[in-house]
Amino acid sequence: MTNEAYRQMWQELGMDLRQHDLFLAALPEAFNTVFLSQSNRPQGMAYFDNLLMEAHGGRIREILDRKKEGKPVVGTFCVFVPEELIFAIDGVSVGLCGGAQFTVPAGERVLPRNLCPLIKSLMGFKLERICPYFQAVDFLIGETTCDGKKKTWEILNEYVPTYVMELPQRKEEPDLALWEREIWRLKKEVERRSGQIIDEEKLARGIRRANARREALRRLYKARQADPVPISGKDVLLISQLAFFDEPERFAARVNELCEELEGRMARGEGVAPKGAIRIVVAGTPMPIPYWKLHHIVESAGAVIVAEETCTGTRYFAGQVEEGGETLEQQLKALARRFLDINCACFTPNSGRVEDILNLAREWRAHGVIYYTLQFCQTYALEARRVEKALKERGIPVLTLESDYSEEDVGQLKTRIEAFLEMLN
Amino acid sequence: MTNEAYRQMWQELGMDLRQHDLFLAALPEAFNTVFLSQSNRPQGMAYFDNLLMEAHGGRIREILDRKKEGKPVVGTFCVFVPEELIFAIDGVSVGLCGGAQFTVPAGERVLPRNLCPLIKSLMGFKLERICPYFQAVDFLIGETTCDGKKKTWEILNEYVPTYVMELPQRKEEPDLALWEREIWRLKKEVERRSGQIIDEEKLARGIRRANARREALRRLYKARQADPVPISGKDVLLISQLAFFDEPERFAARVNELCEELEGRMARGEGVAPKGAIRIVVAGTPMPIPYWKLHHIVESAGAVIVAEETCTGTRYFAGQVEEGGETLEQQLKALARRFLDINCACFTPNSGRVEDILNLAREWRAHGVIYYTLQFCQTYALEARRVEKALKERGIPVLTLESDYSEEDVGQLKTRIEAFLEMLN
Ligand code: SF4
Ligand code: SF4
Ligand code: SF4
Ligand code: SF4
Repeated sequence: MTNEAYRQMWQELGMDLRQHDLFLAALPEAFNTVFLSQSNRPQGMAYFDNLLMEAHGGRIREILDRKKEGKPVVGTFCVFVPEELIFAIDGVSVGLCGGAQFTVPAGERVLPRNLCPLIKSLMGFKLERICPYFQAVDFLIGETTCDGKKKTWEILNEYVPTYVMELPQRKEEPDLALWEREIWRLKKEVERRSGQIIDEEKLARGIRRANARREALRRLYKARQADPVPISGKDVLLISQLAFFDEPERFAARVNELCEELEGRMARGEGVAPKGAIRIVVAGTPMPIPYWKLHHIVESAGAVIVAEETCTGTRYFAGQVEEGGETLEQQLKALARRFLDINCACFTPNSGRVEDILNLAREWRAHGVIYYTLQFCQTYALEARRVEKALKERGIPVLTLESDYSEEDVGQLKTRIEAFLEMLN
Repeated sequence: MTNEAYRQMWQELGMDLRQHDLFLAALPEAFNTVFLSQSNRPQGMAYFDNLLMEAHGGRIREILDRKKEGKPVVGTFCVFVPEELIFAIDGVSVGLCGGAQFTVPAGERVLPRNLCPLIKSLMGFKLERICPYFQAVDFLIGETTCDGKKKTWEILNEYVPTYVMELPQRKEEPDLALWEREIWRLKKEVERRSGQIIDEEKLARGIRRANARREALRRLYKARQADPVPISGKDVLLISQLAFFDEPERFAARVNELCEELEGRMARGEGVAPKGAIRIVVAGTPMPIPYWKLHHIVESAGAVIVAEETCTGTRYFAGQVEEGGETLEQQLKALARRFLDINCACFTPNSGRVEDILNLAREWRAHGVIYYTLQFCQTYALEARRVEKALKERGIPVLTLESDYSEEDVGQLKTRIEAFLEMLN
């Protein structure tokens, strides 16, 4: 990614090249240690490895080309934001949650320290000018999900135009109606900013594109039910993280190709971990790129992560948008309804989430669940109790961890995780 | 408050008498140091001093008598919750936000540590069974304001029935409509739980009762514009805190009596602090009883607090509910509209709050503003930047502090506050 060919592009994007070099410098080694050193990786991972390598290079060039054609480039931060509206007009949608400790101190220059690292990191990416996506976007779409994000948009808006959608906090009929209005409002905003009209036909295509991507990820997750499991948790995490950056159909096609390879493995009873290896479901907060800490610790200890109930996991592809809608009214109603399928801790009550986790543990045949939250994420931390209780009632062991993006607690996490896995043996 | 006469009542309320004794033991001395040692206190404070002394005694007896008459006793936690509906049927409404370090460790048994002390303290009061109000209530009314409270209601509901109102997160027309529906829903719930119907006449009375209390507090705050100021910040804080516990008309009558005394002082140019004393406006998070730390430090250092932009301050009495409504539709619309007048950091954007603070600083002739937040309160912490900026632009010095309910940081707070006051001199 340090390719000289891209320096001019980065410069033109107003990036801080020195800081950017520093940021990129550590990545190849981390990538080697976490990913390339795995044995028996599926060949289909090559595409995703390359996508990661070109994340600040080739992919940005593609995006800038689209921008030149007059297509909007939009940043989002939550799986509730309907990217379908952007895909409808061939815009580019990128997910810009931050996953790097490198930018946390910069974020803390304008944000309170007692805020989750995901938010501080994304703010730091903008302030440090080391993220080409933040530099390339025309505008951002924030949402009123957690307190931290809701109020951070007010500050981020000083640096990049940040439009805010109001996500309701319950899932009753009036909430659905409010959310539907919010989607209409976003539609207008996207039209205003792009100068393009989103009609039924375009929106139908946008919906199909997003559905296809979700469908591919669902198929990938399904493959992980097998024992032995045909792909590591780390690799699926990487794919999920990259879903936020790639073109949806190309991405879906490559995921489907990979799934064919995995299904072949399953038919032959092959896997990346031995049959009978300890299987873990992770439930909790999102893990944006390049955050791989938890997966690396768990899988280095010999267990395998078979599912992630996170927004870089099942919540990302939860629910499909009904494709039958013929009028914009029907289509936007269908778009709005998908919010009922996503069980984020920002809702009250959020009992569907407990069901989701129990279901994952059962169908993915987990030996245990790791409930994982980012520090200062109050909603997910507050749901831990109820999830723990439900799992214990069903005899499923659970380990609750809170962490951040730093490497400081790696030793402590290792000890706790190894003791947990030991107990599951 | 340790009166033997009340022990049986406490026992019948299921309280933990040993813990309760421990809790009460420290209060008389604190009260002496913080309040009684002030010189030149208005005589009208005697009522409120006594109200505090009888908070766990006489006032509870009154409330239990009302309960025997079949009136509902309801606990609330936010100034958005329309107590008018409870006053309409002669119910008792008490504000149960926690203000004591004593109960924080108990709260942490079921809540994450990274949560504001107000929430941990209120949960601890219930778990420790040392709050007769929590023991006496029929049900609680929570709200979806901040993440911490929103998700804590799910847990608190395991111990006391906790009904939740959805407060919207923006102040646009659809939000107002949602909130109005929420008030209708609460009306039904209060009727269901009390077995009484809230008709136009009763609601009109409920509205008048709450308006009268707000009006009295507004008059009290107005008196603090005078220089010399006729009443200390501490005393007004105590009165505001007690507003959440007393009968509204009796409370309003006593506040108005006190105001007459204060207006007499003003006419004579008398005050509790010398003319020209440093005047401070405090802006930030609520300070529930018995939290007096900040006021005690500031006023012990010779300055005087002339206004609090908090929910135990101006946000409590912000806006009046229009009394002209003749139908329930009109009345509930008027009730809903009051939410537009309260500028809580849980809204985005919340620019009205900056105006409120600037206005207080100007009209109350403040030399400086202390922006004060409870630890882990993300919404108020995130608004600090914008408030600081606006104040600095107008040449008004501002000191930003974050604290909790413990005594550990008193030394450090003192140093910072004294340095700030020094600078204002
Ligand atoms: S955790 Fe909730 S708020 Fe965060 S990205 Fe997921 S759905 Fe959105
Ligand atoms: S991890 Fe939690 S605090 Fe952080 S952005 Fe997501 S919901 Fe908000
Ligand atoms: S600070 Fe906001 S949420 Fe808290 S009591 Fe006040 S208005 Fe309600
Ligand atoms: S002080 Fe802040 S975090 Fe605490 S209850 Fe109030 S709004 Fe919530």
